[in-house]
Amino acid sequence: MKLLEKLKWRYATKAMNGKKVPQSKVDNIIEAARLAPTSSGLQPFEIIEITNSEIKKEIRKIGWDQSVITDCSHLLVFAAWDNYTVERINYMFDLTNKIRGFENKGWEDYRQKLLSIYPQRNPEVNFNHAAKQAYIGFGLSIAAAAFEGVDSTPMEGFEADALDNILGLKKKGLRSCIMLALGYRDTEKDWLVNLKKVRKSTKDFVTIIG
Amino acid sequence: MKLLEKLKWRYATKAMNGKKVPQSKVDNIIEAARLAPTSSGLQPFEIIEITNSEIKKEIRKIGWDQSVITDCSHLLVFAAWDNYTVERINYMFDLTNKIRGFENKGWEDYRQKLLSIYPQRNPEVNFNHAAKQAYIGFGLSIAAAAFEGVDSTPMEGFEADALDNILGLKKKGLRSCIMLALGYRDTEKDWLVNLKKVRKSTKDFVTIIG
Repeated sequence: MKLLEKLKWRYATKAMNGKKVPQSKVDNIIEAARLAPTSSGLQPFEIIEITNSEIKKEIRKIGWDQSVITDCSHLLVFAAWDNYTVERINYMFDLTNKIRGFENKGWEDYRQKLLSIYPQRNPEVNFNHAAKQAYIGFGLSIAAAAFEGVDSTPMEGFEADALDNILGLKKKGLRSCIMLALGYRDTEKDWLVNLKKVRKSTKDFVTIIG
Repeated sequence: MKLLEKLKWRYATKAMNGKKVPQSKVDNIIEAARLAPTSSGLQPFEIIEITNSEIKKEIRKIGWDQSVITDCSHLLVFAAWDNYTVERINYMFDLTNKIRGFENKGWEDYRQKLLSIYPQRNPEVNFNHAAKQAYIGFGLSIAAAAFEGVDSTPMEGFEADALDNILGLKKKGLRSCIMLALGYRDTEKDWLVNLKKVRKSTKDFVTIIG
């Protein structure tokens, strides 16, 4: 299957050569995340797309000094909602009604159910739930990058609070979760480029209850 | 791009017709999750593959009575490590050395770094971190199902503790996170099959810092 081939091709690129990725490819990589399924269709995350070199330098300082942060073409920051609010839930349910062109009792009952549970919960619980949805989209963006022949580096190694400050995320009600650098591998400098991919065996990964 | 086409084709199937999915397709869907990147390559999750109809009935009782749980062909439960332990971290670092055929100081230093941080943290923090990695694989399995022409239903609506008991996950140090039903849509009974996919506009999803 094409997807498996692409997943075998990709790896967490450790050095990039600064070459630009065409914007149409970046747009497709983001589109994969936008199309990702999320819990109740709430899409509780956004992407910050960064090419500004000064901002990238700032992020590298709070990102374990990883070279790909500045040597990538585009740096994508996946940021999840800091909380589920009444406004955010209503926005997505209203959008659904608008796009589908009708209201439906089952769907409206489900809206009320979420409104009766989510906004009252601990914001940290809600953020963690939202962040998980962002990771679904994140996985699909990684796959999309591979389909575009673009190298990518998943990165959790950064100070999230500091990144939120650099990007002004708090006032938008967002918290950074994970970053994806997009670019092209520097085969001379990348220690990982020729090493074998390591995964648990299928036997250790799957339990069958037949 | 092929992946985007497949993501547009898929939807959260609400009714399935009981038809069997060939095992080779299920294997590929699981393989996509196995190949998923995870933080530090720890792969802190596993998949339980269920076809047993009695177990499926038990799960439906604690799964909001969703019909796809029993009408699907294969039910996949994504379960994350309940904690990061010294043994688990060492297992994956040792596996890496074995597969790559050498030891490397940088990698061994990184092992010690993780050993000095992860096992001491609150298990709930570790589980949440592990669960997020499972969601990366989950997204890739959804995409793989679409490539195989297999319908799928992502489900978070279940009592996780009860599911852990049914599957005996606690003694394996696992906690269920999310389920994916695999099968084929019942176009007569599925209220969602003909409705438009709803997503936020790209403008509302992406912020560009150029």
